[in-house]
Amino acid sequence: MQAGGRILFITMEARASQNAGRVMDGPTNPMVTPLLTDLYQFTMAYAYWKAGKHNERAVFDLYFRKNPFGGEFTVFAGLEECIKLIANFKLTEEEVSFIHKSLPGSCEEGFLNYLREIDCSDVEVYAISEGTVVFPKVPLLRLEGPVAVVQLLETPVLNLVNFASLVTTNAARHRLVAGQSKMLFEFGLRRAQGPDGAIGASKYCYIGGFDATSNVAAGRLFGIPLRGTHSHAFVSSFMSPDEILERSLCSSDGSSTCEDFVTLVHSWLSKIQWLKSLGGIFGETNQSELAAFISYALAFPNNFLALVDTYDVIRSGVPNFCAVALALSDLGYRAVGIRLDSGDLAYLSSEARKIFHTIEKELGVPGFGKMIITASNDLNEETLDAIRKQGHEVDCFGIGTYLVTCYAQAALGCVFKLVEINNQPRIKLSEDVSKVSIPCKKRCYRLYGKEGYSLVDIMTGENEPCPKVGERILCRHPFSESQRAYVVPKRVEELLKCYWPGKSGKVREELPALKDIRDHCIKQLEQMRPDHIRRLNPTPYKVSVSAKLYDFIHFLWLNEAPVGELQ
Amino acid sequence: MQAGGRILFITMEARASQNAGRVMDGPTNPMVTPLLTDLYQFTMAYAYWKAGKHNERAVFDLYFRKNPFGGEFTVFAGLEECIKLIANFKLTEEEVSFIHKSLPGSCEEGFLNYLREIDCSDVEVYAISEGTVVFPKVPLLRLEGPVAVVQLLETPVLNLVNFASLVTTNAARHRLVAGQSKMLFEFGLRRAQGPDGAIGASKYCYIGGFDATSNVAAGRLFGIPLRGTHSHAFVSSFMSPDEILERSLCSSDGSSTCEDFVTLVHSWLSKIQWLKSLGGIFGETNQSELAAFISYALAFPNNFLALVDTYDVIRSGVPNFCAVALALSDLGYRAVGIRLDSGDLAYLSSEARKIFHTIEKELGVPGFGKMIITASNDLNEETLDAIRKQGHEVDCFGIGTYLVTCYAQAALGCVFKLVEINNQPRIKLSEDVSKVSIPCKKRCYRLYGKEGYSLVDIMTGENEPCPKVGERILCRHPFSESQRAYVVPKRVEELLKCYWPGKSGKVREELPALKDIRDHCIKQLEQMRPDHIRRLNPTPYKVSVSAKLYDFIHFLWLNEAPVGELQ
Repeated sequence: MQAGGRILFITMEARASQNAGRVMDGPTNPMVTPLLTDLYQFTMAYAYWKAGKHNERAVFDLYFRKNPFGGEFTVFAGLEECIKLIANFKLTEEEVSFIHKSLPGSCEEGFLNYLREIDCSDVEVYAISEGTVVFPKVPLLRLEGPVAVVQLLETPVLNLVNFASLVTTNAARHRLVAGQSKMLFEFGLRRAQGPDGAIGASKYCYIGGFDATSNVAAGRLFGIPLRGTHSHAFVSSFMSPDEILERSLCSSDGSSTCEDFVTLVHSWLSKIQWLKSLGGIFGETNQSELAAFISYALAFPNNFLALVDTYDVIRSGVPNFCAVALALSDLGYRAVGIRLDSGDLAYLSSEARKIFHTIEKELGVPGFGKMIITASNDLNEETLDAIRKQGHEVDCFGIGTYLVTCYAQAALGCVFKLVEINNQPRIKLSEDVSKVSIPCKKRCYRLYGKEGYSLVDIMTGENEPCPKVGERILCRHPFSESQRAYVVPKRVEELLKCYWPGKSGKVREELPALKDIRDHCIKQLEQMRPDHIRRLNPTPYKVSVSAKLYDFIHFLWLNEAPVGELQ
Repeated sequence: MQAGGRILFITMEARASQNAGRVMDGPTNPMVTPLLTDLYQFTMAYAYWKAGKHNERAVFDLYFRKNPFGGEFTVFAGLEECIKLIANFKLTEEEVSFIHKSLPGSCEEGFLNYLREIDCSDVEVYAISEGTVVFPKVPLLRLEGPVAVVQLLETPVLNLVNFASLVTTNAARHRLVAGQSKMLFEFGLRRAQGPDGAIGASKYCYIGGFDATSNVAAGRLFGIPLRGTHSHAFVSSFMSPDEILERSLCSSDGSSTCEDFVTLVHSWLSKIQWLKSLGGIFGETNQSELAAFISYALAFPNNFLALVDTYDVIRSGVPNFCAVALALSDLGYRAVGIRLDSGDLAYLSSEARKIFHTIEKELGVPGFGKMIITASNDLNEETLDAIRKQGHEVDCFGIGTYLVTCYAQAALGCVFKLVEINNQPRIKLSEDVSKVSIPCKKRCYRLYGKEGYSLVDIMTGENEPCPKVGERILCRHPFSESQRAYVVPKRVEELLKCYWPGKSGKVREELPALKDIRDHCIKQLEQMRPDHIRRLNPTPYKVSVSAKLYDFIHFLWLNEAPVGELQ
């Protein structure tokens, strides 16, 4: 019962030996196995098998109904992990026997043999490219294959797409509000929803436009740039500079050695203390902080970045930082800057910048005014927006909790709906129109206008002709009769590509490198009309169906819906 | 860059061979390694090492400042995973070389040798038992050891405790509002924040009082009971009962075989259709639904539970269910019940119950009125509370998104603060009093009153005498001079126990089985005074310090705080 780690390791070994020579690596998290699914997928598989229906060809669409965070766009992510799951989808003997034990009641041995055999070699996966800006109702993924197998995939695929797309979208929103010129760091590991809640967030925030993470494991797994300096505990672990025993520091070019760096720092501290233009803003600075800064600088003379808010930013942290930075400058090193982790970030960053400029000017240290100011402390879209409006001097933002847990909306509601079985289109009705599914195996296109922006997405039946550049096409709202528009596209892009061809013989779309997914996402956002992606009152993007598909939906709807009786 | 899965597998292998013969299994998720930490823990480790401070003995407290979900209690969880991390904490050679590459600038080879050697053999971990009800400011964990090593543990330990405690608390809150008599199932896998956001949620919701999960992987890893039947897609994958080819069903006792179960169901359907007492509530039921129910019953005659809301609960789903259940009853099987996944759950469950009772009475089928009614569909604390007040007939609730993502508050803010180094107490000040840390290595006690409820938690210095039963003790609010009370405890419980003794020679507290943690949690909640755990306007539980610790905190505070200047 408590042997979670060991059970998983046994599975990992079994799976690895099974997967030797396979097309691609497994999912990043080895916990992603065919058992990472709802029990009902297996009970249904048994019922399909008993009914002889398990190999009936089914088509499922994965889509969401509403954009998150009150916005009008979403960034699709999680595809690579889905394909890795599908490429390696195979139950181990031990997993089959666990399912055997877990099914309610007994099951026939033939079903277990069936489970032993299944994989995704007969499943086809069509998907929108990872990192693409997407909209409600349009399938992000379309899975076709034997109904029992595709149902087993429903839960893990939803799990892998839902949070990935949510947190990528959240990162993109933070990037939009921070502006392109700022550096954004993801610092959420400690507050994330579990270990790979954190690792996933690091990966997907990078795709969404963040520049780096503090999460070493994510840096190693995905090659994301890493950032980090020191914490408040580091500062308070020191008492005073007296405890620093090894005080020598070689100059940057190796030509000389300063034997007592501590004394050099002290001399700079007195100099800036008496700078008239600083107006005597500080007297005695905190000595444990000074000791911590000196120690950190001795360890990283080329990368000195100090957390300056443990005691008092303006009266202690910034002066201590400046003294150490000036001493480093004497030896040919260039300090990086400061981090603020509390208080009024707009005000404190501006005050700190003034001090840096004063020092550059008064003491003639070129570039000192350009010290990098990093800010952290419970930042989110709202606070970024607020301090931007207030005016600030922050260069880099470190964002944690609100970013990685998607605090403003902790879940995206992707669903997975049957749209066709045995070539028969299926519709799922609901009293709530927004929950009615769009039936049929479909093709999806994005139509672009003359300014280069995308105008509308349109879904058509599988066999309808593709919309053509320069040709007028009627785009209809799928459920509202009155909403429709003619569009003459300047460019037509087919959205769903084949990422896992099954036995179709189609060419498999390559999974791009993480960096390329990130570039694609950034470019996608640039191609959106700004009013669709703005924070306040964004304009909804139009998602439509062809006239033919519209008619078919409504024919099917009337056919399926029970006629009500008012009493 | 894209080789996440492979990198992790290599590490798993290296770690497994390294860990052979170790005290306990590693963490459930193999992604939990010493690299699952913030980069700054490694840059600080290097700075400590450079300063010769890395082995200074430090004490850190892990605690939170505010209960989540607007409540006045929290359930502590995640301890077992922390201890498994600590027990197996060792960097592989490949991880050391990654850190080498990742540190800004160069580092000395001696530091890499130091990294190769470190483990937690000299770290002591004291913790509150997993599943205990806990309150702000009281340390959940206290880690003592070489400062550089304990800092490396900060981030992963926070990650492992934060979400675990949050989601356990969320589950406990759902249990409190649903009442003890209901069954609660966790159905959140598809919407959780990543794969082990889901697996963690399944584990911790079970601890918090849930009865089962749909997550097969969690069932296998932790032995949690599994639940699941079928989905809407299963229903709409059928067209009509005509497609059912294998129609025979052996009776429950094996004595006879019904050759055409489909016809038997049809005959029951016409019977109940004409039952006067049902007032002709339905005419033609949906045939694809009927086919799906019959197929499911043929696969699981002993465990027939049907999802009845694909078309119309009262006019199709429930009558179809009843016909199949009655046919099963003819053959000696007992159907389980229905699941509702949309609409007005209170109303629909009551209507369904009436139909079941009518059938029990009119058709003389004993027990038919007691069919289990399960409800799902975006349930949360509020909706559970609302339908309870409205009156309903639901026996089991399946809860997903809001439960597992902790939608109402997606993060718990546990922090990890240095409280002592080299036997010197440390305090972290802040302009916000709630953020001031409580210094010193402390002992923590829970004092119980004569009615068996816990009255107050009190923290004392490490060497103060333990509060004694029947002896009056002054409990002071840590920061507010006027808030204090004398307490005469009827029972005194020491909260922090030694879960990892390091080199102290103390006895290591065993990690209990998951079931025992769950029982402990349930018992803990029973021991709380009801007003502390109620949903609306709960009474804050008192957390205090001894008079001696109070004086010491304020002495240290005055010593450290800069004297302000008003200008």
